[in-house]
Amino acid sequence: MSGPNTGDSITERAVEAYSQIEDPRLREIVTALIRHLHALVKEVRLEEQEWEFAWDFLARMARFTGPERNEFLLLGDVIGISQLIEVIDHERPDSAVGFALVGPFYRANAPVLGRGASIVSPDTAGERVRVTGRVYDLTTEAPIAGATLSVWQAATNGLYENQDESQPDYNLRGQFQTDDAGAYDLVALMPTPYPVPTDGPVGNLLRVAHRYPYRPAHIHFIVSKSGYETLVTQVFVDGDPTVNTDVVFTASGNMVGEFQHDGDHYSLNYDFQLRPGVSTMPKAPIP
Amino acid sequence: MSGPNTGDSITERAVEAYSQIEDPRLREIVTALIRHLHALVKEVRLEEQEWEFAWDFLARMARFTGPERNEFLLLGDVIGISQLIEVIDHERPDSAVGFALVGPFYRANAPVLGRGASIVSPDTAGERVRVTGRVYDLTTEAPIAGATLSVWQAATNGLYENQDESQPDYNLRGQFQTDDAGAYDLVALMPTPYPVPTDGPVGNLLRVAHRYPYRPAHIHFIVSKSGYETLVTQVFVDGDPTVNTDVVFTASGNMVGEFQHDGDHYSLNYDFQLRPGVSTMPKAPIP
Repeated sequence: MSGPNTGDSITERAVEAYSQIEDPRLREIVTALIRHLHALVKEVRLEEQEWEFAWDFLARMARFTGPERNEFLLLGDVIGISQLIEVIDHERPDSAVGFALVGPFYRANAPVLGRGASIVSPDTAGERVRVTGRVYDLTTEAPIAGATLSVWQAATNGLYENQDESQPDYNLRGQFQTDDAGAYDLVALMPTPYPVPTDGPVGNLLRVAHRYPYRPAHIHFIVSKSGYETLVTQVFVDGDPTVNTDVVFTASGNMVGEFQHDGDHYSLNYDFQLRPGVSTMPKAPIP
Repeated sequence: MSGPNTGDSITERAVEAYSQIEDPRLREIVTALIRHLHALVKEVRLEEQEWEFAWDFLARMARFTGPERNEFLLLGDVIGISQLIEVIDHERPDSAVGFALVGPFYRANAPVLGRGASIVSPDTAGERVRVTGRVYDLTTEAPIAGATLSVWQAATNGLYENQDESQPDYNLRGQFQTDDAGAYDLVALMPTPYPVPTDGPVGNLLRVAHRYPYRPAHIHFIVSKSGYETLVTQVFVDGDPTVNTDVVFTASGNMVGEFQHDGDHYSLNYDFQLRPGVSTMPKAPIP
């Protein structure tokens, strides 16, 4: 029979208990997770009532989680984990567009649209922006023909179409191809800021932290082409003062576009750089 | 406009963003959680597909979480967090009974029973054990009269009554008082080992880690009395070889009883020590 447990002996036993995981990478991650969570508990000397609060908070998060929403991903977003992973995984020169978190509203299989087409249904409120630019190889600067741009954004009421019964299915979503010169051309909605969902436990956390729950205005892009690392990014508005308080820590200097007012609409010219690599698509959080 | 994000700048921004929480203890815990989770992501260089797996795993845990079960608490139990908190919060001399995690099956308001009564319904399978002993002050060794012992345990099929329609409501649960000599006397079921629920994502984790999902045989006790720190513990069976593989890391040398075979039943004499302090009861995970 072993002697009484101590804080250190429990950590040691717990790490040892998961050392039989066969996959080396999974073993590394699980045992590192255990070490870091134990270190957290010891550092703050977490009390029983605080742990009760924590697991009850997690159960309340579970009630807000389903096919259309993942409160755990939202928490990862608002504490910087999701964007941290993008930055760590994709170190790029400052001159290249940066990687952004996918966010909870990406859907696969958006309509494939022709050159110059609009992703905005005619009755959608808000101003239009014509977005043009090139996709090119980050190393050689050669244009990349046949790259796919998957584009999505929220309406001016702050809702993506899957959250909003008043929008047509797949409104403000579309896929476009680059031409032989690597050029693309599409019409989107001039983006406006919107809050992340604040009716769940994560919203409570944002309120007690006095955090402004808004994402600065942006358009999502995924740029992919076989033989190239897929670029997941968001384009923000140059000069928008709220990019410094992005609730998910994504907006930064390598993701801003110079939107121009151009008669009755806006225009934006914006290039995307791809690096040779394995082409993968992110998991869509919603169907 | 800020420059491109780096891994360190995102951690700094995230910690700063939660530094306006007014409650100092909550601020300490939230910012420490952010620092430790960011350190974990950086240490293992977590990849996007791994993060997708993680938030999908959390969403699957959410589907197994409801009023009767909390898969997040179960995860905390099987990675040692729950027992670590007990050990950190309650440092006691090796001679005293140790603190154990509450576990997911505690219910408040079990029937109050008289001296010598049984918590086992007559048709419940298994052998009986008469449990007697004393509750006394850890410092003065003076007996504590009028202390309440809340007792609960699983049936030999491994199920607590709330999991098992074949058992009467509150079977194998009861509350007892100590007499003027601090003595108690009750009849319980001779405990048998049982597995934690393995049909959810946490069960998958235990399987890939080749962990034996069993709790060694035990009886739960909460011993409380106004003016004393409440003792939450479990009594294991001396000589049981499986105490070293307790799936939740609770069983250890300061929580074993010497069960005796005594004619047609077992008997156990076991004392509990309380320390002066604030009397609180743990949150019941189930109603």
